[in-house]
Formats: sequence, structure tokens, C-alpha cells
Amino acid sequence: MRVRIIGTGGAVPASCVTSRTLEEKLGLGPGTLEAATGVVERYVCEAESQIDLACAAARLALADAGIEANTVDLIIGGCGVPYQPLPSTAPLVMQRLGLADGSAAAFDVNSTCLGFLTAFETAARLIEADQCKTALVFSSEVASRALPWKEQPEVAALFGDGAGAAVLRRAGPGESRVAANLMRTYPSAWDACGIGSGGTRFDFARQPEEFARHSLFHMDGKELFRVTSRHFNGFVTELLERAGWRHEDVDLVVPHQASPFALAHMARQTGFAPDKLVDISARYGNQIAASIPFALDVARRQGRVEAGAKLLFLGTSAGVSFGGMALEA
Amino acid sequence: MRVRIIGTGGAVPASCVTSRTLEEKLGLGPGTLEAATGVVERYVCEAESQIDLACAAARLALADAGIEANTVDLIIGGCGVPYQPLPSTAPLVMQRLGLADGSAAAFDVNSTCLGFLTAFETAARLIEADQCKTALVFSSEVASRALPWKEQPEVAALFGDGAGAAVLRRAGPGESRVAANLMRTYPSAWDACGIGSGGTRFDFARQPEEFARHSLFHMDGKELFRVTSRHFNGFVTELLERAGWRHEDVDLVVPHQASPFALAHMARQTGFAPDKLVDISARYGNQIAASIPFALDVARRQGRVEAGAKLLFLGTSAGVSFGGMALEA
Repeated sequence: MRVRIIGTGGAVPASCVTSRTLEEKLGLGPGTLEAATGVVERYVCEAESQIDLACAAARLALADAGIEANTVDLIIGGCGVPYQPLPSTAPLVMQRLGLADGSAAAFDVNSTCLGFLTAFETAARLIEADQCKTALVFSSEVASRALPWKEQPEVAALFGDGAGAAVLRRAGPGESRVAANLMRTYPSAWDACGIGSGGTRFDFARQPEEFARHSLFHMDGKELFRVTSRHFNGFVTELLERAGWRHEDVDLVVPHQASPFALAHMARQTGFAPDKLVDISARYGNQIAASIPFALDVARRQGRVEAGAKLLFLGTSAGVSFGGMALEA
Repeated sequence: MRVRIIGTGGAVPASCVTSRTLEEKLGLGPGTLEAATGVVERYVCEAESQIDLACAAARLALADAGIEANTVDLIIGGCGVPYQPLPSTAPLVMQRLGLADGSAAAFDVNSTCLGFLTAFETAARLIEADQCKTALVFSSEVASRALPWKEQPEVAALFGDGAGAAVLRRAGPGESRVAANLMRTYPSAWDACGIGSGGTRFDFARQPEEFARHSLFHMDGKELFRVTSRHFNGFVTELLERAGWRHEDVDLVVPHQASPFALAHMARQTGFAPDKLVDISARYGNQIAASIPFALDVARRQGRVEAGAKLLFLGTSAGVSFGGMALEA
């Protein structure tokens, strides 16, 4: 697909919380959480909402692109957890960005941690089909809403809040292109990771105890590791084949920031040199679906994304799904 | 797009509840709810889950298509409210249908009541791009989870539970095609309709009172009517223009089943003869995103969709968005 990223932006809330602070608060020995997770610090919402973060990232992406919000005619939200169960999140972002009624289509996609890649592909195909001209895609997460600090502190300490956004347009010949997209789902591990309450599964009024018992995030890291170990390399091979790229063609890997240890494992498993991987997980934690666009924005601002560079986006998500995109920047 | 519906299915839970029964239960005069809503009866989940309904509709759609579940290589859920806040709903449907790990991609889209149209377009564009061969798209809703029976009984009585699904494949020349898709969002009315609690907006543990206060569906019908009255005809005109159809070319309108009165108003406003509109809202209520695929399945089984027929899908949703698709069957 002839689609180009014309701007990116990332946003975090004001408050940065170190693992040391959390260890003290939870009465854990100094260094235990950092040793267990690899995460040194993460940003946590106090006053900010998921919509505030999304709009902050979106405004930075629009400024980076040098365009006004009212140029956008498609907004796709790709968040792991929505702001409300109903309606979807993108229309509220459209409202807060000041777009006029009827000037855009706004909806969400959800593939958990892969939401940004799904939103990107969906928007890119609509641009290719001439359904829109300028798309804003965003992922915004308040992971801190539902973390199991008592039950699984070593899981809770993995996560951080944040948002990332990108503005997409049709690319001219030779400018940029999406060489391949791929997604595969492995639902045998559906139970390995999730938040049970908030949708239709439990009735808030009639099942108050079950609702409360399933209100926090839970994760079975071993089960996720099982699926990833078994299948992820084959997935990457297929993605590269579809793109027509050799392994060594890849200039930069922009992975989902699952955790510092998960990224080190991904580097070993896939054979990409660690310095080819964008790894900001120790400083920001796992920002769920916002991880990939936030890491992309950091890499672009650090000058790591040159024109024509071959970028490989890779991630795993609850579901369980693997997702990837090969992009010539 | 050269895409064809090769099968559809619809499912409702076992229990059918009449408006008369609800009037007695709520201590309302006989006929008051039916007079206020136009809805005579609707189906309501007791033992069934959103996933059960989705799988029942999906199995019927697969049987109608004459294919096995393991032929499917893309599943897109387009529900207004998810089963859980995380992960997305489609991977669980993939698991319950017995698809093998890695045999498909599964994710959700969310445009509230328009979810089926968004799922359909997303799947169709992936089929066109050769990203998949056989797509299953579904919408499944347990509207009864969060209805305001005390606060707004005349709103609560509009809704019913149910699911609809369709199987899509590439169409051969002259077989079938999507002539146009259109979606427009009018976020000035974002507040008119929604369920506040269940996503990141309110913290279940730290804001228990606010969480409880926003846990039910609310609707400001007048505000929705304002947006629809002002903009819907222009939207339909643009959709027909994009399809290259005249108003009189349309053989059948498959609308979102907002309510019997809303459908009567749509017929008057858009000028389509009432007998060209599929209207099952009095018997099933508003099944949120499942309304459109469920109504499509009923129309197909009644023999109202002939080969080559020009179908116009139309709907309005919380957000507020309008959506439509022109399909040559």
C-alpha cells in the first residue's frame, strides 16, 4: 500500500513513578520489583483521562505533520481498553480535537496490544480505496486503572500509561509504502491475560461479587511464553516473506513494549541485534496498545527513522494474537 | 469491491419477553410500554452469554454457506459492547468455534450500532487485498445487561438481545459487489447515548459511587433526533451518489432497527416506501449492532434478497455516527 506517515506524537501523564517508590509503598525489598520486571519507572495518570492522553498525542502528531485537525477525515482508535463500553472512543477524541460534525468518520478497532497496527492497516486500506484522504490513528491507555497490586505486583509493575498517534496520507511514487501486514490469532491461550468485568460477561447489578472478583487485570506469563516460543519465529518468517525482505534488510524493529525481559527474549528468538530494536520499556513500562506508536514516535524524534528505512513492527497481544507490519518509511 | 455474502445466520436467546409482561412487572398500565416504544416483544438472555449468541449465529451462517468453520481465516467482531474490556471478543469466538491456533486473524471493530457495517467493510477490503479468503463477521449483543428499567423504562423496553453473522468471500465477475460504503460522525451529540462505566472513565475500586451511577445505559432521544433530522437525508444522498444508484434503484433497505417509530420516521424522511424497509423491530427490539445482520438474515430467509438485488444498509449509532453500504447481492 502506498501510504505514508506524515506525523507522529506521543504523550504520557505528568506523574512518573519509579519502581523504588512502588517497592516502598508495597513494603517490598528495595530492587525487588525492578529485578522482577526490568521496569525502572513508568508514567501514571492522576488527573488525566484516556481522552486527554489521546488528544495530547494526536495534537503533537498533527503539529508534526504540519496540518490542522480539521484536515482529518478519518479517526480510528486502537485502544486495548475503551474509555466507556459504549459508544466507541474515537468519536469523543474527534469532538475534543474540535472537528466539525460530519467532517470525518470515527470508530475503534480492538486487537488489544496490537490495536495500533490494526488501526493503521484499516486506515491505510481506506486511504488506498479513496474512502478518505487524511487519517489520524491513535492508541491511548490508562493501564493503571485495573492493576493487581496485591495479587500480582510483579505483573502490575510492568505497565505504564500513555498514548501514541500517527497521521497517514497516500504516498507518492517511491515515497513510502506498506510492504506487508500480517496477523494471526492463537485462541487456545485466550484465558492467559485479561480483565473480566466491564463488558457483558458479568452483570454489575446482579453479580456484584463476581464483577468485583474479575475487575482487575490478570496475566499468566508462562502460558503467553508457551505460545510465543512455539510460534513467533514462524510468524516473523512469514511476514518477511510477504514483504519480500531478507532478515538482514530490516533497519529497525519497532516492537510492542511487553517488558524489558520480553524484548530481550524477542531479540534472541528472532535473531535481530538488540541495537536494531527500539526498547523504551524500562522507562515507560508496557503501555498496552499505545506501546508501538509511542515507541515509533520516540524513534522518529531520535532520528532513528530515515527516509527509505525498512521498519518492522512486531507485537504479541492478549487473545492471543501476533501482529506485524513491514513499512518502508 | 468484488465481495459476496455466502451465508448468514441469526440467533436469539430462548426467552421471549412481551411488553405486557414488562408492564405488569414494572406496575405500568397495560399497553403503556408498547405504546411508548412500538416494541411488542424481545428476546432476553437468561443462561446465554454474548459468546453463545455469537457462536450460534456464526454456526448458522457457516451452515448456510455450506462450509466448515476451519475454512475461515479472518474473524471480525463488530459488537457495540464487548464481552470483556480486554481482550477483544473475536478471539474467544474463534476458540469456541474450534478454529486451530494460527489459522485465522481475529479482532474487533467498534462503531456502536454500526459495528456490523464497519466489520463488513474492513473484512471486504482485506479480502480484496488478498489478506484473507473467507471472513466471518458477527455482531452479538446482550443489551439486557445494563438497561435503565427504573430511570427510563421507555428506553429500556426498546432493546433486545441477539446476534447476527455473515460469511464473506471474493465474488466472481458479475456475481456481487459492494457499490459504496460511507460513514460520517457527528460528535456534538456524543453525550446523547452511552454506558459510562466499564472502561477507563471511572475506577471501579476508587470511584465506587460514580462507577455505580454510570453503570446503566442512558439515551437522550431528542438529541439523537436533532442530529438525524438535520443530516441523515444528505448522508443517504451522498451514499447513493457514490454507488451510482438512483433513489428508485434500491430494491431493499436493511436498516438498523433503532425502534419501530424511528424506522417509520426514516421511511418518511428518506422517501423509501415502508414495504422496501426490512422492519422487525416490533418483534425483536433494538439489538444494537446485531440489528443489521439479524435483519439481513431474516430478509434472506424470507426470500426478500434476490440475486442481483440492490440492498441499501443504513444506520445511525451512538457517537453519533451514520453508516451505510450499497450492496449488489
